[in-house]
Amino acid sequence: MAIKGVIRAGFMQLRVLDMEKSVHHYEDILGLDKVGETSDGRVLLKGYDEFDHHSLILRKADSPGMDFMGFKCDCEEFLDEVYEKTLAYGLECQWVDANSDQPGFGRRLAVKLPSGHRIDLYASVELAEKYPGLVSPEIWVEQPRGMSVKGFDHALLYGPELDKTVKYMTGVLGFHIVERCDKPDGSQLVYWITSSNKPHEVAFLEYDKPGKLHHVAFALDNWNEIGHAADLITINDISMDAGPMRHGVTRGYTNYFFDPSGNRNETYAGGYTYCPDHPIRVWDMDNIGRGIFYYERKLNDRFLAIVT
Amino acid sequence: MAIKGVIRAGFMQLRVLDMEKSVHHYEDILGLDKVGETSDGRVLLKGYDEFDHHSLILRKADSPGMDFMGFKCDCEEFLDEVYEKTLAYGLECQWVDANSDQPGFGRRLAVKLPSGHRIDLYASVELAEKYPGLVSPEIWVEQPRGMSVKGFDHALLYGPELDKTVKYMTGVLGFHIVERCDKPDGSQLVYWITSSNKPHEVAFLEYDKPGKLHHVAFALDNWNEIGHAADLITINDISMDAGPMRHGVTRGYTNYFFDPSGNRNETYAGGYTYCPDHPIRVWDMDNIGRGIFYYERKLNDRFLAIVT
Amino acid sequence: MAIKGVIRAGFMQLRVLDMEKSVHHYEDILGLDKVGETSDGRVLLKGYDEFDHHSLILRKADSPGMDFMGFKCDCEEFLDEVYEKTLAYGLECQWVDANSDQPGFGRRLAVKLPSGHRIDLYASVELAEKYPGLVSPEIWVEQPRGMSVKGFDHALLYGPELDKTVKYMTGVLGFHIVERCDKPDGSQLVYWITSSNKPHEVAFLEYDKPGKLHHVAFALDNWNEIGHAADLITINDISMDAGPMRHGVTRGYTNYFFDPSGNRNETYAGGYTYCPDHPIRVWDMDNIGRGIFYYERKLNDRFLAIVT
Amino acid sequence: MAIKGVIRAGFMQLRVLDMEKSVHHYEDILGLDKVGETSDGRVLLKGYDEFDHHSLILRKADSPGMDFMGFKCDCEEFLDEVYEKTLAYGLECQWVDANSDQPGFGRRLAVKLPSGHRIDLYASVELAEKYPGLVSPEIWVEQPRGMSVKGFDHALLYGPELDKTVKYMTGVLGFHIVERCDKPDGSQLVYWITSSNKPHEVAFLEYDKPGKLHHVAFALDNWNEIGHAADLITINDISMDAGPMRHGVTRGYTNYFFDPSGNRNETYAGGYTYCPDHPIRVWDMDNIGRGIFYYERKLNDRFLAIVT
Repeated sequence: MAIKGVIRAGFMQLRVLDMEKSVHHYEDILGLDKVGETSDGRVLLKGYDEFDHHSLILRKADSPGMDFMGFKCDCEEFLDEVYEKTLAYGLECQWVDANSDQPGFGRRLAVKLPSGHRIDLYASVELAEKYPGLVSPEIWVEQPRGMSVKGFDHALLYGPELDKTVKYMTGVLGFHIVERCDKPDGSQLVYWITSSNKPHEVAFLEYDKPGKLHHVAFALDNWNEIGHAADLITINDISMDAGPMRHGVTRGYTNYFFDPSGNRNETYAGGYTYCPDHPIRVWDMDNIGRGIFYYERKLNDRFLAIVT
Repeated sequence: MAIKGVIRAGFMQLRVLDMEKSVHHYEDILGLDKVGETSDGRVLLKGYDEFDHHSLILRKADSPGMDFMGFKCDCEEFLDEVYEKTLAYGLECQWVDANSDQPGFGRRLAVKLPSGHRIDLYASVELAEKYPGLVSPEIWVEQPRGMSVKGFDHALLYGPELDKTVKYMTGVLGFHIVERCDKPDGSQLVYWITSSNKPHEVAFLEYDKPGKLHHVAFALDNWNEIGHAADLITINDISMDAGPMRHGVTRGYTNYFFDPSGNRNETYAGGYTYCPDHPIRVWDMDNIGRGIFYYERKLNDRFLAIVT
Repeated sequence: MAIKGVIRAGFMQLRVLDMEKSVHHYEDILGLDKVGETSDGRVLLKGYDEFDHHSLILRKADSPGMDFMGFKCDCEEFLDEVYEKTLAYGLECQWVDANSDQPGFGRRLAVKLPSGHRIDLYASVELAEKYPGLVSPEIWVEQPRGMSVKGFDHALLYGPELDKTVKYMTGVLGFHIVERCDKPDGSQLVYWITSSNKPHEVAFLEYDKPGKLHHVAFALDNWNEIGHAADLITINDISMDAGPMRHGVTRGYTNYFFDPSGNRNETYAGGYTYCPDHPIRVWDMDNIGRGIFYYERKLNDRFLAIVT
Repeated sequence: MAIKGVIRAGFMQLRVLDMEKSVHHYEDILGLDKVGETSDGRVLLKGYDEFDHHSLILRKADSPGMDFMGFKCDCEEFLDEVYEKTLAYGLECQWVDANSDQPGFGRRLAVKLPSGHRIDLYASVELAEKYPGLVSPEIWVEQPRGMSVKGFDHALLYGPELDKTVKYMTGVLGFHIVERCDKPDGSQLVYWITSSNKPHEVAFLEYDKPGKLHHVAFALDNWNEIGHAADLITINDISMDAGPMRHGVTRGYTNYFFDPSGNRNETYAGGYTYCPDHPIRVWDMDNIGRGIFYYERKLNDRFLAIVT
């Protein structure tokens, strides 16, 4: 082990149009636990299988989308190093004080990526009030609810300057490229990258508008839970995008659907175990339809065009 | 990511009494692929979802058990560091030449643990002849066979000097303690330790005889595959030890059974995703029965006493 | 179709020692719905996927066990025929008035079997207050709870005069023998019999004491639900008997456990689809262990000896 | 039980354009066993979990579609009764000699339905050469192959005169209406009907062209097998129509795909247990999209228009 770097995708602050409907969606249907509310009205949530204070923040706004996404690192020293390297790389970054806008979180380093997204790096977070048992534990402390999502999993981000973005993520932050899709001209359409054994913690797709969110994904355990989540999507009359299905990329099982503000959600399960010595898997444009929609084997416009 | 250290449990050399029966067991029933045979008659196997040259070596011998277990590291430099630190820690260790007894493997550092087990550290291995697809891949290259085990997963080792052993594994090799079981006197009975997001890659249990193998585990995907493996155990009239069941420790699903030489096998699936910032989970002797046999909630003599 | 005869096992009246604990067990943990309470304190329950008024009645008593088990028939005419044939067969039987002890039920014909059990035949029952949706229905009206049992499934009854009992069940009531176990002397140990496509609706085992209940079974959908039920058994500290496992007989998946009064429960899923033209499957004493405990392949004393 | 009537959908004779490709499709991918070949070049197949001689017949022809579908009855007497009643109902019917075109089958009564389909009724069939074990059996005799379909399950037939057709199926043959879809004018679009505990054995949809096949379905066990079948559909580059998904109607899990001749196949699993005393479930045109495609909640043109 050892590491010195990012250990996982840790949280996302999401913009929603209607707080009540959104909390109902993420709390009652996905099954996240509401952790608290900030003085400025943001709502904090987390999954039953997460230890950190919170992993999803909902902020009421006029348009949906992502404010920023956080990545947890294994030590404070790494943050200091990244600060220097980020400036050297030519990107803006700035420190966010501990316990300022994110209760329970230590200092964060906010970086503006070439793709237009803000990502926050941090190494210290308080334990949540409720977390998995540590003393001769049962398999859960409280029976999971709704879709029973375990926690925040990953995101797919759309924006320009894919190459420069991913070079920063790998070169400075130490992410590994797990899979990628090549265009006929030799440039890339998408990169799936990770900082753990998960086959992706974030993915970037080349897109003309900056800072866009394609989907935020939450973790489930297996294909049965994916089917159960699809049942709940229908029963709760949620806008379904695609699924239940499988990805060729990562081999994971998935549903895509929309939250009440139009942010695309994914419930994701399975996928292979990535190891840092694995070769990169490479897709071409003729096959990427099968890569994303393994059963339909072609992309649809809705998947490509709807982002927030 | 980054790391500099162990990235996973990578292989085991196992002693078997009857080579033909053993190859049938691991190849046809568990579903490993036979990679080749060494000039001294050892048989090399690997799982369909592994990239490295091989992960299981069967050696004909008069008694069953484990010759040694290997851990893959992310760089050669780490091996050199470990060599120095191991000697400083007071353990024997020696270099094994590349491509000597393990075809396709680079140099290894063989360490004699206080528990009596030999473990080998290595950073370089050739790709196997058959490995998961890399170019617009399907979910498998050939349909998995038998139990469809994906590859080598972990082992539970029994031996003396638990404390000194685990201090070496964590202090020198960088393993994390994920779970442990405490005895009433404050000492430990078992440690489950990892060097990845898997909840264990090896576990050690305090035992009076040195170098013993309790079980070698192979990876499956989910509870359905655990049930299917149990069907095959019965249909092939394999000696079943316990399962299908679940562990409280790691929350994984499991079957225990015996290979034709009496070595205990496990098929293991599920389990939570460990992160290096997670607190340690601690069991006591009153609850450890539930920790191992989550449904029966008590240990049995067979589980405790039969080792090879 | 057509039929004229029994269409399914429909209910059981069960004796319990502590009503509060029992209702908690069947309502909160198994997930049956409480339908109502009779003036003499009996509690009525049913599964979410059943249409009839109720399918389980709990009666407080000094000893556990079964009062009687009911079988629904497709017409009143059949009941009249059975009345005559039962007397001719030499068994006691008597009519029970509609809406007497079982609210919502039409008249029943109570038959005393040679095995010492009372079974009730009936053809008319009112719809329950809550039942599966009929108008452009969702897959459920309310999300199932606890183990999510769908309803009453079958029972295994222990008692003397197996042969005479089963001859009545088949010859007079029209049950089909699906599987049986033969003893070395050519007589039978068990018969699994059905009146539908389910591989058993009731089974009888030769036993010296009359009127005994080995287990009452409730229906689940699949192996995943069997695993989930086992999780709940442990988490709720319920006395587990055996499972999760599979039967060779019927091929179904199962858990056995005890209700707070010591009545053995089963959660049962899967099993093949029986058709009335299928040949009988026959077990011998050397293999019946595998027939019942497909993975352990031997019976244990607890399974054979504990009845209520 | 008792019955006197149809006990199940038993076989279909299907027209295919290319026999070699078709046999590969049904034998290697779906996993049916080839039973034999007739002197006129038709190929006979059956599922591993079926007892009767065969359940699928492939006939080379210039256009795809169904020649006829067979329903097994519980006695020869019923056939004689149906003969009289069919003529009285005003439909053509004729006897087909035993062991004429269907090896192993007794006499059949071939009826021409108002919808333009031919259905065959029969009561006697020889056991297949290979069938499920009867003597202390394992859960299978040979490990299932490919998608592991258990056998023939049901079909959806498109044709005119829906009302007259279904009145015959229920009034003369004794089928039960399980679900139906009503049009705004009070007439019906579809009927799902059964003669067992399965929620459908055949369905009819009002359509202007006679004798059309919408799909022929084969039985799987559960949602995991549905996912596995979808994997094989992609890996074998089979034309996928829809799925993996669920029906609101019957609550079953499903994939739709096409055989090499363009006949639509379904793999079907789950679904509730129908009992003959259950009320009919009724869909309207606003909800039938959800009834068929439970997750997408709307029908597509391909589903409605492609028939063979």
